[in-house]
Amino acid sequence: MSTPTTPAKAPYPVEAWVVREPELDLDRLAITESVFALSNGHIGLRGNLDEGDPHGLPGSYLSSYYESRPLPYAESAYGNPEDGQTVVNVTDGKLFRVLVDDEPFDVRYGELERHERVLDLRAGTLHREVEWVTPAGQRVRIRSTRLVSFTHRSIVAIRHEVEAVDQPLRVIVQSELVANETVPVADDDPRVAAAMESPLESEEHFGDTTRAHLVHITKGSRQRMASAMDHHVHGPDGTEVSTEAHADWARTTVGCRLEPGESLVITKYVSYGWSSQRTVPALRDQVAAALTSAAQEGWDSMLEAQRAYLDAFWETADVVVEGDDEVQQAVRFALFHVLQAGARAERRAIAAKGLTGPGYDGHAFWDTEMFVLPVLSYVHPDAASDALLWRYSTLDLARERAQQLGLAGAAFAWRTIRGQECSAYWPAGTAAFHVNADVVDALVRYVHATGDEAFERDVATEVLVEVARLWMSLGHHDRHGAFRIQGVTGPDEYSALADDNVYTNLMAQRSLRAAAVVAQRHREVATRLAVTDDEIAAWETAADLVLVAFNDELGVHEQATGFSDLAPWDFERHHDYPLLLSEPYGELYRRQVVKQADLVLALHWRGDAFTPVEKARAFAYYEPITVRDSSLSACTQAVVAAEVGHLELAHEYLAEAALMDLRNLAHNTKDGLHIASLAGTWLGLVAGFGGLRDHDGRLTFAPALPHGITRLSFSLLWRGSRLTVSAEPARTTYAVADGDEPVTLGHAGQQVTIAPGEPVTLANRHVEPLTPVPTQPPGREPYRR
Amino acid sequence: MSTPTTPAKAPYPVEAWVVREPELDLDRLAITESVFALSNGHIGLRGNLDEGDPHGLPGSYLSSYYESRPLPYAESAYGNPEDGQTVVNVTDGKLFRVLVDDEPFDVRYGELERHERVLDLRAGTLHREVEWVTPAGQRVRIRSTRLVSFTHRSIVAIRHEVEAVDQPLRVIVQSELVANETVPVADDDPRVAAAMESPLESEEHFGDTTRAHLVHITKGSRQRMASAMDHHVHGPDGTEVSTEAHADWARTTVGCRLEPGESLVITKYVSYGWSSQRTVPALRDQVAAALTSAAQEGWDSMLEAQRAYLDAFWETADVVVEGDDEVQQAVRFALFHVLQAGARAERRAIAAKGLTGPGYDGHAFWDTEMFVLPVLSYVHPDAASDALLWRYSTLDLARERAQQLGLAGAAFAWRTIRGQECSAYWPAGTAAFHVNADVVDALVRYVHATGDEAFERDVATEVLVEVARLWMSLGHHDRHGAFRIQGVTGPDEYSALADDNVYTNLMAQRSLRAAAVVAQRHREVATRLAVTDDEIAAWETAADLVLVAFNDELGVHEQATGFSDLAPWDFERHHDYPLLLSEPYGELYRRQVVKQADLVLALHWRGDAFTPVEKARAFAYYEPITVRDSSLSACTQAVVAAEVGHLELAHEYLAEAALMDLRNLAHNTKDGLHIASLAGTWLGLVAGFGGLRDHDGRLTFAPALPHGITRLSFSLLWRGSRLTVSAEPARTTYAVADGDEPVTLGHAGQQVTIAPGEPVTLANRHVEPLTPVPTQPPGREPYRR
Repeated sequence: MSTPTTPAKAPYPVEAWVVREPELDLDRLAITESVFALSNGHIGLRGNLDEGDPHGLPGSYLSSYYESRPLPYAESAYGNPEDGQTVVNVTDGKLFRVLVDDEPFDVRYGELERHERVLDLRAGTLHREVEWVTPAGQRVRIRSTRLVSFTHRSIVAIRHEVEAVDQPLRVIVQSELVANETVPVADDDPRVAAAMESPLESEEHFGDTTRAHLVHITKGSRQRMASAMDHHVHGPDGTEVSTEAHADWARTTVGCRLEPGESLVITKYVSYGWSSQRTVPALRDQVAAALTSAAQEGWDSMLEAQRAYLDAFWETADVVVEGDDEVQQAVRFALFHVLQAGARAERRAIAAKGLTGPGYDGHAFWDTEMFVLPVLSYVHPDAASDALLWRYSTLDLARERAQQLGLAGAAFAWRTIRGQECSAYWPAGTAAFHVNADVVDALVRYVHATGDEAFERDVATEVLVEVARLWMSLGHHDRHGAFRIQGVTGPDEYSALADDNVYTNLMAQRSLRAAAVVAQRHREVATRLAVTDDEIAAWETAADLVLVAFNDELGVHEQATGFSDLAPWDFERHHDYPLLLSEPYGELYRRQVVKQADLVLALHWRGDAFTPVEKARAFAYYEPITVRDSSLSACTQAVVAAEVGHLELAHEYLAEAALMDLRNLAHNTKDGLHIASLAGTWLGLVAGFGGLRDHDGRLTFAPALPHGITRLSFSLLWRGSRLTVSAEPARTTYAVADGDEPVTLGHAGQQVTIAPGEPVTLANRHVEPLTPVPTQPPGREPYRR
Repeated sequence: MSTPTTPAKAPYPVEAWVVREPELDLDRLAITESVFALSNGHIGLRGNLDEGDPHGLPGSYLSSYYESRPLPYAESAYGNPEDGQTVVNVTDGKLFRVLVDDEPFDVRYGELERHERVLDLRAGTLHREVEWVTPAGQRVRIRSTRLVSFTHRSIVAIRHEVEAVDQPLRVIVQSELVANETVPVADDDPRVAAAMESPLESEEHFGDTTRAHLVHITKGSRQRMASAMDHHVHGPDGTEVSTEAHADWARTTVGCRLEPGESLVITKYVSYGWSSQRTVPALRDQVAAALTSAAQEGWDSMLEAQRAYLDAFWETADVVVEGDDEVQQAVRFALFHVLQAGARAERRAIAAKGLTGPGYDGHAFWDTEMFVLPVLSYVHPDAASDALLWRYSTLDLARERAQQLGLAGAAFAWRTIRGQECSAYWPAGTAAFHVNADVVDALVRYVHATGDEAFERDVATEVLVEVARLWMSLGHHDRHGAFRIQGVTGPDEYSALADDNVYTNLMAQRSLRAAAVVAQRHREVATRLAVTDDEIAAWETAADLVLVAFNDELGVHEQATGFSDLAPWDFERHHDYPLLLSEPYGELYRRQVVKQADLVLALHWRGDAFTPVEKARAFAYYEPITVRDSSLSACTQAVVAAEVGHLELAHEYLAEAALMDLRNLAHNTKDGLHIASLAGTWLGLVAGFGGLRDHDGRLTFAPALPHGITRLSFSLLWRGSRLTVSAEPARTTYAVADGDEPVTLGHAGQQVTIAPGEPVTLANRHVEPLTPVPTQPPGREPYRR
């Protein structure tokens, strides 16, 4: 094996299955805390140093556990949400403080002779190795391994080891639970979550020998949580253990004397439980039971289970990228974090940052449905199902919101933790009604991919009907009959309250048609929802007549009606990216400047509505005005660039999406990872170079590799079968690896059926680009490695 | 003379020159406090009862004296103003509390046998007569007369009299200054000013014998103010007077024993001074000097001067409306309050509510330039000049704001007290760039009306140049050459961020053309501002090519591009007016529902850009969708209805504008009067039934009276001459009353020159309406008497 090398700009060496930080960089601490975050979708821990100090941003999060805060408006308006929901940094259970003789272990003092952290994408652990010499000259080795269990969803397990190296040492290790840690104040960037001071109110605390628990409740939202810890200590004779507990902290203290070569090893189990309904005794018992279960399983067994869970995941999810080792590493890092965000979320929201940081207040957006679920539906459908069931659980809130807005059907929240709309700037919140089509699209995709008819009947149909009703009340037929949806905000948040946004309209069209199909297929559900034949007919008519803005003169689709009439953006004078931090929304809205793929996003997800020429022309038109001030853009540009034949440009965009967090390209990885962009890495590879499309449940591919990639292999679960696709520059091999059923798919326009055990190899079709390679706004060329 | 009669819905009898409240209605106290407010534009006092309690809303205001407060945003955005400015209820100097034997005079106790308040529009006073029997049976008469002096701008004078009626009484009168009165909390209506608790911090207090003063400074904005009072007491022998002062209050106590028929008469002078720069001693001396000056003048002389000032005003301003006594009274009430708002404002802003209440935070809007100044320019041009000089004084702030927004030139504040933008909801604030054209229009009108060339050179030119530059940076020539201004909000706040709003575009056109003219006429100013010939040519080209949205298919102008394609508003389901309190902005924006005259406002002020047929068709189109949720609408609808021949409808709209506050038609007169609608009464009569237009400085009339008005007479000052116009149903007489210069004007399309002393009578032209009388949205028919 070759020695791993670190690219010039990369803080982590390129390795296939790990992300390694060879030495500690204190200036990047907040960033690496996000990169090294562990989560199972239920509990999330930032990669804070075991000893707590120094830190960038301490963070321990519980899925959907939130505090409420009033949303202030200097000028109130009807329909503005009054209460926000913000993710809470809960009781910190990952703390181990070490005293070596009289010196507290702190990397900022003494000599840090070695410091390595390794995120192991197959083991599911964060491992740390430290060799430290105290200011007084004592040398210790400290090792820790941390996991958030995929198999015991309420358990965090940490093994912590202190070894004396060359002289005897007195060592005290304090393992803690700490509530209401001081969190650094957020800056002015609107994308950073509001800091909240001491959100937790103590309700109970207990500590005894090796264990302790704390019970707290949020001051505003009245969400109760319990955290508990227990310890298994292996030290030399004379090792002493004691535990004390207070309202906001509990501490287990282990003291011993180590001879050179001797170690103190502590295995700590931390469990969390939370509820808006369960009582203090119930939660206290819940966390205690979880600890007992974890202790019975034991550390080694838990490590094995973690690896086994991941082995199963990688069996389907892994993408092999030959020829581009950086992307190879990045896509595995990406898929690992996508899994961590959703694996055990279990009917709670998958947030934009997962459980890796407080960015965006911990809210979930349309990112989940349009970026994360298209991946999970094919590689880990159970997690996709859970996320969709979470949306479904908010349907009544969405109905209420629609009613409040004077609309029919259901209007899902633009940003939320629990389902209530929390967006305080409605032109880029409530007005972004496309989220409803996105939810429908994700439901339909999941049903097509899994063939889960019960889910379609029991879950999807109701949502589709209510969203169809929303479109009918939002839009109208104009005097020429065209169905128009006006005054809405599409994906491009630099163009708000637009008319006939093409992405929105085409996604609404799909949503209306899908509703008509399921309402007729599941008559009993439709009848319960009082759907009439006339209503279904109206949906079909609206879908057929939906306006798709096209400029005949320019021969290109308009992002929205009139878009191409807007003034150009003066990139020479205004190019501090992201523009939103130095330009008023009004100026952005008034001009042809696009924050993120919008019409181009429609080219991807509603590619069935465009001809190849239209796609090529549209991509060429929007490319020079798209600034990618959102991390949701690069992956889509990669997908569409690949489709229209600009494979090298696609490769650059793909790398940007893939390296968003590993290279901190958006400069805010510190606030949490960009889960959608990480998922977009898979999309860029599989939908971009693999050409995956799934319009109306027809699985099609059109593999085309850029020069730098010599092989691309991936798998999809399709109605119980595992389809593997292995693309080389000239040909692609399809095989059904698991499952009895053949899979019918399209390859470069040709329909083929792949039988289990009978791989088929087909020649790729070369797409000649119809336009020259487009340029980007000054300073916004894709990330160049 | 006939006995005044009170119309069924009217709380005040119809009288020519007074507004009388025959008996006290405690439920309407806050409303009558606004109606009976006194002001000289410098100081304003709500019509609170002398004894303070009960009150609706205590209010004493000083022109442009404000407190700052942070404007909160749940989601911050670049360019949002951070600080708001709010009018302050300052030290109350109008208080007289009375103790009759042991009983405090309070209208809620004992027997109120008579209570009358009279606002005298010629005397400029509020007079009150009370006969009250204490719970113990003592009868007193209390009379007060209050004025805010037009001639001594920092003086309030009050005469207060207590008379024993049928038995001897011990009487104590306490005359006070009270700072930081408790103000009732504002409700949720966004139009109501934010309440501020105790904004004033004491700096100095002093009291001695008959006089006292208090000096305070606002806690946030650091605006200093001094208030002082002095008393002249006439009572029976043995009357005792003493004064004490404390941080937040000062009290002069007068005690005496009155025999039946005997009175205690106190004349109180109150003076105010305020500054953001002057010191405590300077302000202390300033208010003391003002008191000395007032005392030297004396009560009777001050009353006379007040009447003389008003006589001079009415000489020009009075409008005689024969046949409609209610409107006759209302237009005088209206003009009185317009005068009060602006008379002595002297280079400070004229607020939307004048100084009559805390509504809209005491801010000035475009109301001033487009509704108030068109009246003042013709009837009291000095006040118009002062108001324009205030705007001019904010030009540097407007330049800064434009720069902050990334725009050229100057962008005046949408709402402000001192010039800084205070609008916290930018789609209906900063985006309403038409305010800049409105400022220009008012400047140009003033210059045309007065012929004040120095003002044009020294003031107007600089503003016109900077506003022209703003338009050039806001708009652009599209690929067909049309000059387009996109993403702006016109007057209709139910349609924000629209493209090519016709009102905005046509007013910008006028603004660009006027800038080109003055920049060429005043070369030295233009040179100083670095205006080039190319720049002027660009303004002219943009003006010539400005897009005026017209729908060929419907044959009607679009309020903005695409407006007629929007969905209709469902008035059957949604008709709780004002709609903004129960409908989200998004729904309003998305549909064809108009808050207030917008295209119809363009028909008035840019009538030169439309043919008669276009006007008729446009009025007919917009009338059924205009809900008049703004008080700025009815007067404009009156003007245009009259022009297109719907004279009876015009009469109804006129009455609505005229009676807005006398009948509390908007249900918020309690927060202050609608100064723009009051000014609109004059516009409705003079521009509506008189047909006054002044496009490009050409004075034209087209009188046409509705059935109910048998004669309409009014005067205008035109370049130093006073032109009187007396319209009857069939003919109109024009005369030049004062001045040596003949006046050239248009009458019904015919140009005539009126020489001084040579009245000309011309036949009116009957306009046959081209459309049937249009209808209004359900529930929004004009106010029917």
